Amino acid sequence: MKAGLQAYVDRINAGDADGVTALFAPDATIEDPVGSPIKHGPEIAAWFRDTVAFNTRIYPAAPIRGSHGAEAALAFDVEFTPPGARRMRIRSVDVCTFDEQGRITSLRGFWGPSDMEVIPDEA
Amino acid sequence: MKAGLQAYVDRINAGDADGVTALFAPDATIEDPVGSPIKHGPEIAAWFRDTVAFNTRIYPAAPIRGSHGAEAALAFDVEFTPPGARRMRIRSVDVCTFDEQGRITSLRGFWGPSDMEVIPDEA
Repeated sequence: MKAGLQAYVDRINAGDADGVTALFAPDATIEDPVGSPIKHGPEIAAWFRDTVAFNTRIYPAAPIRGSHGAEAALAFDVEFTPPGARRMRIRSVDVCTFDEQGRITSLRGFWGPSDMEVIPDEA
Repeated sequence: MKAGLQAYVDRINAGDADGVTALFAPDATIEDPVGSPIKHGPEIAAWFRDTVAFNTRIYPAAPIRGSHGAEAALAFDVEFTPPGARRMRIRSVDVCTFDEQGRITSLRGFWGPSDMEVIPDEA
C-alpha cells in the first residue's frame, strides 16, 4: 500500500498523467476534496491530465502510513497553478484503498477551504 | 471539525480520559488501527482510560486538515508506554467524522506494523 502511494506521488511529480491513472483500478473512485462529487473512469483520467498541466508538485509532510488492512494514508502539501491564476498550496491528507493487485480502488482527499492558500510571489 | 480534533489531542495530552470520551457521540465507532475490530460504547471509554494510563502523548506532524463535509484528518506521532514494556512510537493518521453537534461519530486510525517502533532508551 505504501509503495502504491509513493508511486502516486512520484508519477505526479514526474508529470506522468498516464502513469498516475494506471495506478487506479477501472472502477476506482476519487472524492477530492472529501464532501465533493465522486469522480469515476474518464473523469479520473481527465483529473490527472489537469493535475499535470497545472505543474502540480506534492511535498509529503510525514512518512506514508499503512494500516492492518488494504488502506494507507499520506499527509502532504500540494502546489499547483490553475490556468490564469496564481500558484496555490493545499494542505491535504489522502486516504487510499487498494485491491489485491495493488491498484487504488478509492482515494479520498481531506482538505477544506481553510487548508488552501495563494503562494505569495517571490520578491 | 478542526476544533474537535484539536480538543482530542489536547485532552489526551492532558490525561483527561473522561474529557476525551465526552468528545464522542454515544453511538460512535473507533477503528484503530484500520483493519482491526471496531470499538463501541464502553470499549471506547476503556480504550481512553488505557490511553491515559499509558502516559500517551500526541505530537502533530502537520496542521489538521478539514474537508468540504463533516470530516477532518490529522497526521501525528504518538508515544506511549504499555504496562511492563518499553516506550513506543506510532506514526499515524486519524480520520474523523462528526455529527451536527460537533461530536465525533467515527475515528479511523491509519497505521501498520511498519509504522510502530520502540523508542531507544536515552543514554
